Amino acid sequence: MNVKPYRRKANFYETDQMGIIHHSNYIRWFEEARVDFLDQLDFNYQKVVELGIEFGLLDVYCEYKSMLRFGDIVDIYTSITELKNMKMSVSYKIIETASGEVCTLGKTQHFFLDKNKNRPVALKKAIPELFELFSSLENETN
Amino acid sequence: MNVKPYRRKANFYETDQMGIIHHSNYIRWFEEARVDFLDQLDFNYQKVVELGIEFGLLDVYCEYKSMLRFGDIVDIYTSITELKNMKMSVSYKIIETASGEVCTLGKTQHFFLDKNKNRPVALKKAIPELFELFSSLENETN
Amino acid sequence: MNVKPYRRKANFYETDQMGIIHHSNYIRWFEEARVDFLDQLDFNYQKVVELGIEFGLLDVYCEYKSMLRFGDIVDIYTSITELKNMKMSVSYKIIETASGEVCTLGKTQHFFLDKNKNRPVALKKAIPELFELFSSLENETN
Amino acid sequence: MNVKPYRRKANFYETDQMGIIHHSNYIRWFEEARVDFLDQLDFNYQKVVELGIEFGLLDVYCEYKSMLRFGDIVDIYTSITELKNMKMSVSYKIIETASGEVCTLGKTQHFFLDKNKNRPVALKKAIPELFELFSSLENETN
Repeated sequence: MNVKPYRRKANFYETDQMGIIHHSNYIRWFEEARVDFLDQLDFNYQKVVELGIEFGLLDVYCEYKSMLRFGDIVDIYTSITELKNMKMSVSYKIIETASGEVCTLGKTQHFFLDKNKNRPVALKKAIPELFELFSSLENETN
Repeated sequence: MNVKPYRRKANFYETDQMGIIHHSNYIRWFEEARVDFLDQLDFNYQKVVELGIEFGLLDVYCEYKSMLRFGDIVDIYTSITELKNMKMSVSYKIIETASGEVCTLGKTQHFFLDKNKNRPVALKKAIPELFELFSSLENETN
Repeated sequence: MNVKPYRRKANFYETDQMGIIHHSNYIRWFEEARVDFLDQLDFNYQKVVELGIEFGLLDVYCEYKSMLRFGDIVDIYTSITELKNMKMSVSYKIIETASGEVCTLGKTQHFFLDKNKNRPVALKKAIPELFELFSSLENETN
Repeated sequence: MNVKPYRRKANFYETDQMGIIHHSNYIRWFEEARVDFLDQLDFNYQKVVELGIEFGLLDVYCEYKSMLRFGDIVDIYTSITELKNMKMSVSYKIIETASGEVCTLGKTQHFFLDKNKNRPVALKKAIPELFELFSSLENETN
């Protein structure tokens, strides 16, 4: 399985008065990359939800190494860095395409939520195929 | 009935690289003012929804007369400028508190949606008290 | 000159609690489409700014005909619908790619701002090539 | 010095299709609380910038303990949890006013940037009064 990075262009409305992309937007870019990651696995968000599971967010971390500006194009590399029964960690690396520079690093932790019972669930039980898929991708650098 | 303007401070994250509040945010400020308007009528959004009605948005217009910046405080004056059976127009005037200058004008048109039947409905039938309330406020300058 | 529509996918973070794309985001999508339009003309925003001109926003209008949801793919058609010495109107049509349905219509009016003198300017004088380019595209349906 | 928490109401446009406040918004609320914190110290952001200093952002962390919804009112408690020569950590606790429940925890790390030289600087040297002020507030629970 070869997951490709998610390519993205920085929008004007994402800038702030310092002339850079406002820091809050990277959290949204991580989500876009995560959605694209699932799309590429042929197990998109909508399909997961239809199977009764949501990815509940536990926390988010973002480290700003260098600033991006309007019009910059980036590649976001997404990987599953830890997979457990009840939760997983997803890591992100944002690289400016032109320079190859690592601009931003990030990590989100998610738990698996059974929507009907409204409580955490083991993904292995809930959607075994997806657990296997995630497992095969764990720690794989894309 | 005396509806007070909605006071609001411009946030840093709402600026763009021109050093001004990005134009898309005013559409959000109108929504905040609309929500506050309903709150003041003791007929808040949640209550309207509980009664089975949503305000569907038909269109939005915003005119930019002078720019606002991070930290500026504004008063947003909201008024119902046209009330019909099936829809209404809400108008907005954003005034910078310090200077008294009119910075932004806006207008939104909404139809009344019966959530259960998922089709437009006459507000007069659906929530008579709210129709009366809106009617009494129509064209009143706050 | 053949300007292609701007393709765009609706993001999760652009939804609201009604399960649809929040109306304020379309104003941002129009900006994305406008930026892409200039990119395709080989006269991108950054180049215009380097030549000392900004496009000041006078007003924005958006009409919501049908709602979009997370994951929907749209094509945004941008055209210059009126070009005058000191200002222009840009129109937008958002079509859902899958259904071909027109979901959203929009229009923005811009004046040409001489950044150094900080006052409106005739584009024909300021950047004659860009005026000619816009002129050749006026009312052309892309 | 008694710094009061920053009170804030969750907006409709901050919700997502799960019916909760989208996680990216909390990063923006932290910024609002930080700005309010400086305002209360009578050393607001604009004043710091005028003195030639910016707070460069190194990283941000946010932990989601329970979800907030449209209309919820929160108090955000901001404190300086670590102050060094060249950087500081600011921590945030978001409490829902009605229930008293801790909903969100956060932390941001900032370095002090000399805007003119465009390089990190010791705050103690750059703005001694502000360093003293921050120092007196370090680890103080507000």
